[in-house]
Amino acid sequence: MNAPITHAQLQPQVCLRAVPEALLVALRERFGAQCSTALVVREQHGRDESAFTHVPPPSAVVFAENTADVADAVRLCAEHHVPVIPFGVGSSLEGHLLAIQGGISLDVSRMNRIVSVNAEDLTVTVQPGVTRKAVNEAVKDQGLFFPIDPGADASIGGMTATRASGTNAVRYGTMRDNVLALEVVTASGQVIRTGTRAKKSSAGYDLTRLMVGSEGTLGVITEITLKLYPLPEAISAATCSFPSIEAAVRTTIEIIQMGVPIARCELLDDNTVRMVNAQSKLNLREEALLLMEFHGSPASVEEQAQTVQAIAADNGGQAFEWATTPEARTRLWTARHNAYFAGIQSRPGCRAITTDACVPISQLANAILASVDEAKASGLPYFLVGHVGDGNFHMGYLIDPDSSAERQTAETLNHQLVARALALGGTCTGEHGVGLHKMGFLREEAGDGAVAMMRAIKQALDPHHILNPGKIFIA
Amino acid sequence: MNAPITHAQLQPQVCLRAVPEALLVALRERFGAQCSTALVVREQHGRDESAFTHVPPPSAVVFAENTADVADAVRLCAEHHVPVIPFGVGSSLEGHLLAIQGGISLDVSRMNRIVSVNAEDLTVTVQPGVTRKAVNEAVKDQGLFFPIDPGADASIGGMTATRASGTNAVRYGTMRDNVLALEVVTASGQVIRTGTRAKKSSAGYDLTRLMVGSEGTLGVITEITLKLYPLPEAISAATCSFPSIEAAVRTTIEIIQMGVPIARCELLDDNTVRMVNAQSKLNLREEALLLMEFHGSPASVEEQAQTVQAIAADNGGQAFEWATTPEARTRLWTARHNAYFAGIQSRPGCRAITTDACVPISQLANAILASVDEAKASGLPYFLVGHVGDGNFHMGYLIDPDSSAERQTAETLNHQLVARALALGGTCTGEHGVGLHKMGFLREEAGDGAVAMMRAIKQALDPHHILNPGKIFIA
Repeated sequence: MNAPITHAQLQPQVCLRAVPEALLVALRERFGAQCSTALVVREQHGRDESAFTHVPPPSAVVFAENTADVADAVRLCAEHHVPVIPFGVGSSLEGHLLAIQGGISLDVSRMNRIVSVNAEDLTVTVQPGVTRKAVNEAVKDQGLFFPIDPGADASIGGMTATRASGTNAVRYGTMRDNVLALEVVTASGQVIRTGTRAKKSSAGYDLTRLMVGSEGTLGVITEITLKLYPLPEAISAATCSFPSIEAAVRTTIEIIQMGVPIARCELLDDNTVRMVNAQSKLNLREEALLLMEFHGSPASVEEQAQTVQAIAADNGGQAFEWATTPEARTRLWTARHNAYFAGIQSRPGCRAITTDACVPISQLANAILASVDEAKASGLPYFLVGHVGDGNFHMGYLIDPDSSAERQTAETLNHQLVARALALGGTCTGEHGVGLHKMGFLREEAGDGAVAMMRAIKQALDPHHILNPGKIFIA
Repeated sequence: MNAPITHAQLQPQVCLRAVPEALLVALRERFGAQCSTALVVREQHGRDESAFTHVPPPSAVVFAENTADVADAVRLCAEHHVPVIPFGVGSSLEGHLLAIQGGISLDVSRMNRIVSVNAEDLTVTVQPGVTRKAVNEAVKDQGLFFPIDPGADASIGGMTATRASGTNAVRYGTMRDNVLALEVVTASGQVIRTGTRAKKSSAGYDLTRLMVGSEGTLGVITEITLKLYPLPEAISAATCSFPSIEAAVRTTIEIIQMGVPIARCELLDDNTVRMVNAQSKLNLREEALLLMEFHGSPASVEEQAQTVQAIAADNGGQAFEWATTPEARTRLWTARHNAYFAGIQSRPGCRAITTDACVPISQLANAILASVDEAKASGLPYFLVGHVGDGNFHMGYLIDPDSSAERQTAETLNHQLVARALALGGTCTGEHGVGLHKMGFLREEAGDGAVAMMRAIKQALDPHHILNPGKIFIA
């Protein structure tokens, strides 16, 4: 992949479509105070955690409170061929929420009801504005939990739309694996259901999986049925420091190849440990670090831990430290989740351009080490964290958002990293989605034929391109 | 669901499309001896394990030996708007292989090469004609296995196309969860790739999952990359007899709700145990029976077995018997896999009309007990087997294929069973697919809106409806 960095990667192409006054009148009439055109509200809904700036906000924000609201908002926008951009908590890293073709932001955060908990079946049905922490709060009294954990307290709707995963995916899978069924509003404002509460099905095309990861471009998700898991009888977390990133990654590869059912296996490099120590007031050894967690019966956790300790020791791992109390575990994982913000805070005023490649586990050391070398050589500050048990890692290049030179450098690094990941049999995005930022990468990865198939599906399901248009690919 | 049983459920509607002589000439020219129009070959390719009879065979059979063959065959058929029906080993239970609109059978059984084993990444890439046993043969020396096991030694292409699962799915998931990437020939004869060898990805629409379970209607699968698993250090299988089906099912429900990572949990009723004993010359107690398997470290297997034994004892389970040697295990699972044929053999000359409902685990006893009562009341002979750990079970109604009264009785039972499963939050098909037999059920289950979405996708990807037309839904 030696194609030049496109303008779209540096800043998205904005091409506003008309939003007729008649639509705004109709929305105000239908939604009253649930529809806002106040600039501050629109601006809040016109940005996300991506490094993109300077895109005009949407023309209005509709705060949906139920499925009928979503259906009516979409139907009104469809009549006028105006874009609709679903909005949860705004934690996208890839520009998903930016109104690059103008239109209406459809905020579903008020749809935050737990519809039903079916503890006997290990399922829960929620509205899209429920966050992952709220799901866990709602089910913990029944001895259950929902494992998917992308760091941010993202909405379940957004996590579904981006096929999110995070620290627990190495054991419990991603949103792909943990969404059983959906209610979706189509581009014409029709309400459909996909899937059932049965654990498996061969009943026709897998519309659930088609919607999971469709980034708001094929339908607006209004209800999600998720798998739950019994809270493990025993949980142990541990940290282990390594003389090099390579040693930590080799340890990870061997853990996975041995089939150890590790629940979390996260990497921070020395540089990032330093940032986390500063932000979270911790005293972690400032070396490459694995943060791990083991779930199971007490005996199984003990057995897993012994296997992993032996592998770590073989690779020069030192200072294997246990966090056994819930408080110590929470402190550790909060620090891990704040690594992104620790990175951002290490350079006041910066934005992070974040990579998200995922490679076959055997290629992980190759992928990470070369990328770290390139980042060091560039002189740009960066952080490195990874869901390494999945072969997924994130470099965050910390740029001055007003410096086009730094943006260019970061994108060049990103480009090299992705090209390497693809050459190694991997993907440009393990969990963040394509959004605006990875459209060129998707073409390289999937090929023109597969992208043409995606376009044909988009065209069939959203002929006027009103659902989050201009994301994933140019339709 | 009180709709009358449609004619299509009793016998499929045949509506042959013209197969121009020019196409046959072109196929013979391109494929030489790889193209056959011999009646015996065509008849072999015009039937499957479904109870449907009397459908004319395809006009020709093309034996593809590589992806280029598939692409050329599809391209030639596309030029003439002639149906193409992919064929693996012919083990479909739902009429997938019947040429109800005429056309060409595209036999991929000669595409039986293991393309590559990536033991370090726990993946294998195969051609579609490779069977599941051949995959396991190819990887066992590396200490790996592929768990999906639908009973028949089905082709991986066919298993992918029907989203198959089987006895191990309770622990390892279905084809949905275990296919990482595909090569597919589209309706225009273009070759595309979906997915990568990375364990997870958020790169655009999940075309892999769209193709998995599409039953040959969206593309012809020409290469499949599968997940593999380390062979468990310890494996133990056991049988346990119960005083009633209800007791066996209650045991299953409690095992799943406890989160025991059981690898197999299969039910046979007393009636079916009798058939299996007769066919496999076994002496299993002729009572409701659970066949179970535990995978893990020796300590973990021991722990799982203890938990399960306690649950079984609480439910009146008796005669917990271990099959610890590989030979004893093989004998047991072979008997289980032959239950279908044991059923068929119990009534010479019969065909089986097989149900495939799957319900949320808490509803499993309700679903099974009522269906058994109805079957008994009908007087039709039947067998009952189930992947009960998944909430999935099969009644096989053994009919005289020439008796329309028996066929009608069986379809009425099937109808009642499916209606109940849907009312309980389940699906009409856990693993066999829709094919010809469940088109009406799919509409009831998914609703007109979701089926319309499936149709729109079909129309977009196969505008001339040449890929296995008339299956899943009437396009």
